Parts: sequence; structure tokens; C-alpha cells
Amino acid sequence: MSSTLGPESDLPQIFELAQQLRVDSVRASTSAGSGHPTSSLSAADLMAVLMTRHLRYDWDTPDNRAADHLIFSKGHASPLLYAMFKAAGVVTDDELMTTYRRFGQRLQGHPTPVLPWVDVATGSLGQGIAYAVGIALAGRDLDKLDYRVWVLCGDSEMTEGSVWEALDKAGRHQLGNFTAIIDVNRLGQSGPTELEWDTDAYARRVEAFGCRALVIDGHDLDAVDKALTTAGDGTAPTVIVARTVKGQGVKEVADKDGWHGKPLPKDMAERAVAELGGLRDLRVRGPQPPAPQPAPAPAAVSVDLPRFTVGDSVATRVAFGKTLAALGARPDVVALDAEVGNSTHAEDFKKAHPERYFQTYIAEQQMVASAVGMAVRGYRPYATTFAAFLTRAHDFIRMAAVSEITMALCGTHTGVEIGADGPSQMGVEDIAMMRAVLGSTVLYPSDATSTAALTATMADLPGISYLRTTRGAYPVLYSHAEAFPVGGSKTLRHSDHDQVTLIGAGITLHECLAAADELATEGITARVIDLYSIKPVDTDTLTLAAQDTGLLVIAEDHHPEGGIGEAVLSALNTANAHATVTHLAINELPGSGETDELLDAGGISRSHIARAARTLLQ
Amino acid sequence: MSSTLGPESDLPQIFELAQQLRVDSVRASTSAGSGHPTSSLSAADLMAVLMTRHLRYDWDTPDNRAADHLIFSKGHASPLLYAMFKAAGVVTDDELMTTYRRFGQRLQGHPTPVLPWVDVATGSLGQGIAYAVGIALAGRDLDKLDYRVWVLCGDSEMTEGSVWEALDKAGRHQLGNFTAIIDVNRLGQSGPTELEWDTDAYARRVEAFGCRALVIDGHDLDAVDKALTTAGDGTAPTVIVARTVKGQGVKEVADKDGWHGKPLPKDMAERAVAELGGLRDLRVRGPQPPAPQPAPAPAAVSVDLPRFTVGDSVATRVAFGKTLAALGARPDVVALDAEVGNSTHAEDFKKAHPERYFQTYIAEQQMVASAVGMAVRGYRPYATTFAAFLTRAHDFIRMAAVSEITMALCGTHTGVEIGADGPSQMGVEDIAMMRAVLGSTVLYPSDATSTAALTATMADLPGISYLRTTRGAYPVLYSHAEAFPVGGSKTLRHSDHDQVTLIGAGITLHECLAAADELATEGITARVIDLYSIKPVDTDTLTLAAQDTGLLVIAEDHHPEGGIGEAVLSALNTANAHATVTHLAINELPGSGETDELLDAGGISRSHIARAARTLLQ
Repeated sequence: MSSTLGPESDLPQIFELAQQLRVDSVRASTSAGSGHPTSSLSAADLMAVLMTRHLRYDWDTPDNRAADHLIFSKGHASPLLYAMFKAAGVVTDDELMTTYRRFGQRLQGHPTPVLPWVDVATGSLGQGIAYAVGIALAGRDLDKLDYRVWVLCGDSEMTEGSVWEALDKAGRHQLGNFTAIIDVNRLGQSGPTELEWDTDAYARRVEAFGCRALVIDGHDLDAVDKALTTAGDGTAPTVIVARTVKGQGVKEVADKDGWHGKPLPKDMAERAVAELGGLRDLRVRGPQPPAPQPAPAPAAVSVDLPRFTVGDSVATRVAFGKTLAALGARPDVVALDAEVGNSTHAEDFKKAHPERYFQTYIAEQQMVASAVGMAVRGYRPYATTFAAFLTRAHDFIRMAAVSEITMALCGTHTGVEIGADGPSQMGVEDIAMMRAVLGSTVLYPSDATSTAALTATMADLPGISYLRTTRGAYPVLYSHAEAFPVGGSKTLRHSDHDQVTLIGAGITLHECLAAADELATEGITARVIDLYSIKPVDTDTLTLAAQDTGLLVIAEDHHPEGGIGEAVLSALNTANAHATVTHLAINELPGSGETDELLDAGGISRSHIARAARTLLQ
Repeated sequence: MSSTLGPESDLPQIFELAQQLRVDSVRASTSAGSGHPTSSLSAADLMAVLMTRHLRYDWDTPDNRAADHLIFSKGHASPLLYAMFKAAGVVTDDELMTTYRRFGQRLQGHPTPVLPWVDVATGSLGQGIAYAVGIALAGRDLDKLDYRVWVLCGDSEMTEGSVWEALDKAGRHQLGNFTAIIDVNRLGQSGPTELEWDTDAYARRVEAFGCRALVIDGHDLDAVDKALTTAGDGTAPTVIVARTVKGQGVKEVADKDGWHGKPLPKDMAERAVAELGGLRDLRVRGPQPPAPQPAPAPAAVSVDLPRFTVGDSVATRVAFGKTLAALGARPDVVALDAEVGNSTHAEDFKKAHPERYFQTYIAEQQMVASAVGMAVRGYRPYATTFAAFLTRAHDFIRMAAVSEITMALCGTHTGVEIGADGPSQMGVEDIAMMRAVLGSTVLYPSDATSTAALTATMADLPGISYLRTTRGAYPVLYSHAEAFPVGGSKTLRHSDHDQVTLIGAGITLHECLAAADELATEGITARVIDLYSIKPVDTDTLTLAAQDTGLLVIAEDHHPEGGIGEAVLSALNTANAHATVTHLAINELPGSGETDELLDAGGISRSHIARAARTLLQ
């Protein structure tokens, strides 16, 4: 049986498609020897109706900017998604049956954007719905296009707080272009879900968060169609709460515990395929989106970076804010805040470009997810909060790297430098977190000029880039003519007879400079390196310093693990350069206090740096 | 005016106390030159009634196990908390006025358990309420004591997903001993909050999540008293939604934007104190808890660790599960799961000790928060999920370190080793995250025997300890007689003429052993070190290897930043030991595949290790 379904197809035809999606989900996972067939079976009816009658998608031109988006937040239902791709005719049955979950192939265990029809990697639950909100926000407020965003969620993932951050934003912004479909199949990975089939409980929560809830039987195609039609009316963010049966259509596993994430053994699979009515070869072309529109060409705008006067005291967070506002001249730059914009100075962007400033309130996961969603739509997001609170979004940042997203993050209030607010507000783990993100860039400027230059550079930097700023105001060190290439450094003190090298970034660079002055009065000449680029790091300059002086002092306002010190040791090791290195970092729990007191107690102040240098020279 | 208030005090007297709390909040923050007086003023009435009539607290015996708990989730309202401590007579006015937010002092900018009346550090919003749920759960299900847990929340923090994870659990478990009080003062840090004074919206959300909502005017002392009485009836988890005015009582700042986190200038403070009726010296002794009960003495139970046979294939996650179940013989050991217990094998504990097994469903933040709450009550929690998903709880782990909590975390499914599920499920950043946690211990066993020993060790290890396990089954390497001290290592291949040292842990240790075998056939003798303790790391053994062989190959199933390689480089640097080191780690985005394929593609397989050794020897 081979025929092509479209919006005009009747429900019995769509049921055949649903059965085909089930059959292919079973076959694909059994052939792979792993995967989640039962989680696919429960949602097959939902997806069959969606793709035939509602999803306006141009399968041949997946970059059609006017097309709808579909996200599988329950990424483990990849057999279903890939069966849909087969039904759409963009993946062959052969590819499905011989490459799923295999090495080097694109049909991975959980979907990733290696596939042109996948926007974001999913598989860490509670994330797809959050990205969908970001895309929907971009659609309505930035693209001003009519596309809709559909997201399929599992019921287990509804316990993730990030889901409620997402629905809160969908509700607040009344994103009429956003529809989440919850596949309430009652069974999680290791037993019944928390709310089982209490669809009313889901509906109450959804409505309390400002979204429209539609409770349906997820296997009643007519009900599914009506709900999707209502959802598509664009009047309200909608959550379809669909009661389904895990393993629907296959008696041996339907609604049975113990079948999560397990492929059916071959004999069972054969029986299942027979029960489902055997193989089919239906094709689907659902409603078409408007004709492809090219992404708007980047406007050739000139950005006037703020300029700072050498010697003036300017906080790097202030320089970041001014630069971000200036970068807003580029129409692709957007800024996201987690209700600390007046501290991080991201708020400067709001004043200049309120239409591209997104307040996510105190919801760092959604802030990063919205940034990812906007990046999917081609924007250059800058998401900013205190460095300490970016840890809240660690899993989203990790997954954004799997999605190969380009975005800029900025963490402010780093280190013990912040003073009186105490350890809960001190980012002292952020460099370790951000360095370990695949393909990331980690920048840590010490003055306003370098902050402006690096903030601007991030707008064109592929991957996830991170800027670390400092709370207090410190002297501007560089004139605006200076260049700050990623992977570079600045040698601020240098002579032919340097005895020791002092390496810092951010606040500790200023401490290194002061230590060098102190050492100079004792006749000790110290080289001083501003290591503004932590990843990639300037291996050549570090190697030269090792060769020239043999003695290095590294000071960082961060825990010793995974930070600047280890970045330097790694670089020296790569270059096979040897040096005796003293590494000063925050090793004990700080409290409140003045900056100077805390730097000193933390062992990273000018006096500790000078002392370490003297000790090395003994 | 000096007198002592108690449960019998009338509301006018309690109003005087509230005004005193306001006055002292203003004075303390003005004297410190920083802090959050307006956020304190809004909640003063709530706290005055609570501490006088409802909080059963033994101020002189803060470790009275029968006493109520009070947590300031809005930790920035520390001036109010410390003013309460003064009213309770445990902090002097002099301490409040001269030490708040000062260096080396206990009255820090945000509360930490340095103070004996503070259970957990707060200041990262959305966390206190989650810890409170953990303590309430411990109270009802473990301690079986009658204490109540009160938590004061800000309204801004209600946008954090973690808050809804917490209320979902409070509702699910119907924790009648749990009361959250939301101080809905309408103004956040940088403007109006998302829901402003829409107290009904808060109530709808709270009720949808299964808790009882009581909406009141937070400045109507009678209403506050009645709500607290109702909350204290123990029949349902309760959220008091209290409409308040930020800066209440001080006209110049009341309900005015721009006064978050700002102390009043001296002249304003003086006017404020006058407006509030001047200084008072009221003391409070609220209702007393039952007489102090000592913590139950640790029962002298013998734990029979599981034994494994050398050469058998056993996954370390399996050994972890068996050991955890065995450790359950200790009544203080509890286990927490995020609905993956059948994968992590934490489920073994459930079978043996269901009464101490806590299913938090897919809500990693709450899982860790519940663990922290139980640790506050003296239990030894083991919280387990996939290593990749522990990143979701990074901010909670960071804050647990600030709280100086002792707990064990276990992350399973680490590295590309997991195979077909793909990168979303692969923990390749977890070592970096966990090493950078203050005071943490990071363990990564390679076989079942060492896993059992280390899992058991963690039960008595202070601070936050982390065990990294592996998905697949690999040979048991050690007999049960072997000891695995924290900070140790095992040298598995060793001779007097080792030419190169191979260092691995977990899966890569097995690859190192295979590489050594391969090299042996070529006449190359390689030392092999099982670096099961990543932090602290065995500097002596590493130094000896550097001295003896001069050449090290380190292989890790983790990103290169912040992992085993950098731990080794740091250790060698500390010891001033020199070696030429080749560091093999995961540098590119993996996909799906078989373990062997992915290890090889990632450059960390036996053949890559052997090749690296050969190259070093050239």
C-alpha cells in the first residue's frame, strides 16, 4: 500500500499512518537493539494527525523560515520522530532500519540538529518545551512571522521545574503560536509517573500558569484533530493533555510496566507488526507553509563601541552593558535577563532596544532556553546573570553545545571580589563549568576596553562563548585602538631580564600589576600577563614566559579546579614547556567583607602574589 | 521599653515587635552600608507573629531535634532574620550594628549555617523552599517527630522552576508539617515582579500543585495569626500568599521602585526609625518545643558489603546499587532517586529499605534539595541520577557546599562509554563540575570491588562526595580484601624498568590495561595506575611515576577541561614533579554507536593509548 496523505485525508487514512509510525518505531528499535518503542507508540496517533493536517512544514526545504517548528521534548521517542521522517519521504526505510543508533549515523538515539529537520538536541527531559517557548517568542516578537511551534512532551518530564518556567513564560507572553502536547501515557522509566492518568491535575497546573489546557483521549483521532485545530487558532498558548497508553496497539506491552526503553525481541516485534496490520508505505505531505523566505541578510550596520579613558575606574560589567547596548545596532543581537539587569548592566540594552530585550525574571534555565530558541532562528543572543546563578542553567548550556548553538553568555559578580553579599552570590565555579562545555570560548577581561572589544567579538564567535565580568570598578588599562583576539593575551610588564611571571585575569590582573610594582621596589622584575582569553588560551605567550622566567605565579578569583591555573598547566603541557608554577586560588569558604579583605583572606591579593614570587625566587 | 513577648502577647504588642524588627533591619543595613532593608520591612509583620506565637523554637538549644525549622528562602532579607535573632536574645544589638556584613563575622550578607540557628545557606533564590520540603519529608517519614518547617519566600523567586518542583513534592507527600509564606511585595530587584500583586494567580498555582493556599494581607496581624494557626493544624502543606508592601512602614521607600538591595542613607534611616516609633528592646520567647532530644546515637550495625569475584564482569553501577542496599543496614543512610533507579541501580536500596527511599521523579534540583534537607537532620543521603543530569542541580550542589552539607552524590552513565543513547545522555562534564565544588571528594572506581569499598567510605566522608560510575560491565580487578583509601590509587602494572605510565579511571583504566598488554607484546613495559580518587588525588604515586618513567599517558572519558588530566597536572605541579604528559580526552561531539567505536572515535581507546605511549617513547 503506497499512497500520499495530505490535509484532506480522512481519519481512517490517518489511522493507517499512525499504525505505520508504530510499525516503523517497533522495527527501527528492534533492528538497533535499543531504543524506546513503547514511548513512541503512545504518541503515534497524535503525531499522525499533526503531520498530516496541521504541521505546516516544507520537508524539502527545512530552512524555510516561514515553516512551523516541531520539537520532540521527549527525545527518547526518536523512533517515532524518525518514522515520521520516513513518512515524509526524507529518510528511507533502509536508513531507518540499518542506521538508527549506529555509529557515525545521523539517526542517533536521541535527536540532534545533525538532522536538518531537528532544531535542538533533546534527551535531557524538560528542555524541549523550554526551547519551544524561545522559538515561539522569536516568531512573534522578532521574526513577526506566522509560524507555529509544536512540542511533544512526555508526562514524566512534567516534574522538571524547567517545564513550569517555560509554561509560565508561554502564559505571560500569551504565545498563541505555541502548542505543547503532553503524551500522558502514565508510565515512566521505572514505574508509574507521579500523576499517572490524572489529566485534570495537569490541566489545572497548565491553566494556573496562564495557558489553555485541552484534555483529550490521545488515541481518538477526531479529538486529536479538533484539539490541534483549536490550538492552531493562535489565540492562546495551548497545552494538549492527551491521555494515552504506553505501547498502544501492541497487546503484549500496552500499559505494561517494565517496557520503558526496551526494544521488542525479534519474535515479539514480528507479532507486534502483524497486530498493527503489517508494513505500510504511506507518504505524507501536510499543509505547506508560505513559500521559502530567505533569512534576512545581515544588515551592514556599523557598531560604535564605547570608548574608555586609560586610568579611569570602570567596572567591566558596566563596560559590558554599554557595549551590549551599542551592539544592538545590529538587528540580530538580542539580550536576555533574569531580573538582575540593573546589576549586570544588561539593562543598558533594554533602554536602547526594548523590542529585543527579554526579561525572563528569575528563571535562569528559561533564560538560556529562550536564548537557544532565538539562536535557532538566527539571532545572536546575549544571556546575562550573576555567574553563580548561571550554574542553574548548566544542563541547558551542556545541551546547547550538543545542539551546536551559537550564543553568548555573560556571568557577572565573579569571585570573592564582590564583597559583602557573601558566598551565595560569588561565582567561583563558573570558569570550570564553562571551560568544560564542548567548543566553548571563555573570556575574562580585566578592564573596560578589553571588555568592550571581547563583548563585540562574541557576536561573531561560533559556539557558546562566555564572558566573565567583575563587580567593582578598576582602572582602564588599554586604549581603544588595542585589539583583543580570542586566544590572545596581553603582556603588560615585560623586560629582557624578567625573573618571574605573574599571570592574572579580571581582578587578579590588577593585583598582579600591584604585586609587580611592589616587587620592583625590591629590585625584582616581574613580567605580567593579562590572560583575558581562558579558552582558547595563549599557549605561545605562556610558553615564552616559561622559557624566559621559568617561574610563574597564577592568581585567580575562582576555585583551583578547572580554572585559569589548570588552563595554563594544560597549555604548558601541550607545548611541553616546563616552569615552576605557584597557583593561587580560592581554597576556603569565604564570608562577607570588603573586597581587599576577601582577596587577602583568599590568598589571591597583591601581597600573596608578591610573596609567592619571592618564594619562587628563593 | 524592654519586655518579653510570648505566645500570650496581644497583637498590639506583636506590632511593636514588628516595628522593632523594621527599625533594626534599617539600622543594621545602614550601618553596614549594604543590604536589603526594604525586602525585610515587607515581611516583618509575618515574622513577628510567627516567632511570637507559632515558631516552636528553643533559641538556647538550637540543636533541639524536636524544634521547628525556619528557613529564609529570601536570604537577602538577612537584616530581618538577624533582627529576629536579636529579639530572641541570641545576638546582641552591638553584634547586629557592628558586624553585619563585615569581614570574618557570622552575620553575613546572606545567612549561612555558620550561625547555629540557620540550617542552610540561602541567597540563590528558589532554594530555601526546596530544602524546607526535604526537612519536612525527613520530619514526617524519617524522624517521625512533630516539628514544623516554616519557610519565608520572596515573590520574585516564585518564577524559579525549583519552587514548583518543591511544591509538587510538598503536595504529593501532603506534608502537613510544611508551611511556605510568600512575601508578595510586588517589587523585585529591577522592577515589578512578573505577577505583581496577583495573589489569586499565586493561589491557583499553589493549589494546582496540591498545596493549601491562604491569601492574606501580610500586614494584618490578625489575618497573619489566623493563617499561621491554620497552617499549623498539620492537615495539609500550606502556602500563605501574603500581600505586602516593600518598604512597609517607611513612607519614603514604601512601594517605591529603585530601593531593592539599598541601605537607607543615614539621614533617611534616622527619619525611618523615627517614623517606625524609634528603638525598642523587646525580647521574644515564643512557644517552646518539647524538651531537647539527643540525636539518636548511631547504631552499631555491621554492614556486609557485597563481594565480587575477580574476573567476573560487573558494571560499577550494579556494584553501587548492591552496596547502597547493604549500607541501608545503617539507619542513617537514605537514598534519593530521580526516576532512573532501575538504570542507576539505586533501586536496589528501595527493595531493601523502602521506608528510606525517596522517589523525587524527574526533578534533580529537588532530589539534591531533599538530600540537603535530610543531611540537615543528620541523615546520610545518597542521591543518584545520570551524571549528565546532575548538572541540572549544579546550583544546589554549589550552595550545599556553602551550607557545608555532608552528602553523597552518584552519577551514572558517564562518558561516551554509554553508547547508542548518544550525547544528551553522556556525562562528560561532571568531573569538572564536581571537582570545582568546595571541599568535595571525587571518586571514579573502575571495578565492582573498589566501587563497593568507595560507596561505603562515602557514608562517613565529610562534605560533598561524588561517585562516578560506568554503564557497561567490565572485569572485577580487586579482591574484597583490598583497601581503597580516599586520596589513594592502585598501581596495577609495575616493574623496576617501566618506560611509560598509563593513567586511567573507570572505563579508561580497562583500556590502559589492554594497551599495556599490547605494548608488552612489543617489549614496552608500561606502568598502569588506577586513579580511582580524582580529588584528592594520589600525588605521591603520580610523582613517583613521573620520576620513574618521565612519560605519562592519561586517558579519560570526559572533556579535557577540569577532569582527570588537569587533576594530574595540578598534582604534579604541586609536587614540582616533571613529566611529559599526553592527555587523551573527549574533544569532539560524539554520536551514537557501540562503546568500542565511540571510545576509539573519541581517541581514548586502548589503541590510542598504546599509540600515545609509543609516540612518547620515540
